[in-house]
Amino acid sequence: MNTIVERIRSQATYLGQGIIKVDSFINHQIDPDLTTAMGIDLARHFDACSVTKVITAEVSGIAPALATAQALHVPLVYARKHRPITMSPGFYLSEAPSHTKGGIVQLMISPEFLSAQDRVLLIDDFLATGTTIQALVQIVDQSGAHLCGIGCVIEKVFEHGRKTLAHLNVPIVSLAKVELIQDKLFVS
Amino acid sequence: MNTIVERIRSQATYLGQGIIKVDSFINHQIDPDLTTAMGIDLARHFDACSVTKVITAEVSGIAPALATAQALHVPLVYARKHRPITMSPGFYLSEAPSHTKGGIVQLMISPEFLSAQDRVLLIDDFLATGTTIQALVQIVDQSGAHLCGIGCVIEKVFEHGRKTLAHLNVPIVSLAKVELIQDKLFVS
Repeated sequence: MNTIVERIRSQATYLGQGIIKVDSFINHQIDPDLTTAMGIDLARHFDACSVTKVITAEVSGIAPALATAQALHVPLVYARKHRPITMSPGFYLSEAPSHTKGGIVQLMISPEFLSAQDRVLLIDDFLATGTTIQALVQIVDQSGAHLCGIGCVIEKVFEHGRKTLAHLNVPIVSLAKVELIQDKLFVS
Repeated sequence: MNTIVERIRSQATYLGQGIIKVDSFINHQIDPDLTTAMGIDLARHFDACSVTKVITAEVSGIAPALATAQALHVPLVYARKHRPITMSPGFYLSEAPSHTKGGIVQLMISPEFLSAQDRVLLIDDFLATGTTIQALVQIVDQSGAHLCGIGCVIEKVFEHGRKTLAHLNVPIVSLAKVELIQDKLFVS
């Protein structure tokens, strides 16, 4: 998808230590037309799987996941990181190391919205080390749902998440791949 | 807008102490078609104001605000509650009491994405006491931007946010109004 590749080339900044600043169009300011197009593109790759639910983690996964759910016309469920008072006990729970904040992040999804009958597409803004996606996969496993595949907007190839997730044996789609060579970003 | 009103009538639960559980379609599981329709409806009310930016606060404001931004074809900026490492110093900052978690929540927006040239529509999922919206208004004021109006999905009439925000003298639109009479919800 050329638009997102071009946008990363023109607007992303490399801050060092693997951190890419894309907050002008992905995770602080959001370009809605670009987001809609990304959702259509991600959905297209999983047309054949009869997805019943899109799953992501709050916060920055919500926009691309909503656009994908809009394209597929199936519900989106976003994993909460703090249990809201409206969440009933007995929720699915998994843990992931926080890439940008340090420490451990908990992810929670209510069994009301994910069951063994579901066919799940996992969406996130970044695929980096793959640990957040792995935590979401654990929740999908707890629910007994079928995992159709994984879609992300930006794959940080140099953090090897694709290798970490290879054992899942599901399609992994990224709309843009970013390599890091001598502290410079190369986008394809 | 009948769809959201009907959905609240059929799926919302009153948990006591002013808390309404709508996590099957608004703030844990999201119905994307309903969200798209809500965005179109919210946008329609502000057609005449030449909005240049939709502003909300993470987390649960993002979905309705993104749908509104999609309908208006203008960028969405969501205020962060925790400063990401990608956010430059010198950000706009305001504080609001947390309704559901206790304590104080900080809201932050980077000046890169909000300036005196902007015409802002504030969107949130709930209008309750109005304090979150007020904190966002403070940020809009700091930036010098023009405030076009306020849109929300569900107005908890019994928490009087509309009265709290009346001094702003801007249109306040809610898609559904919920009254609380003897611990029962009445939706219109």
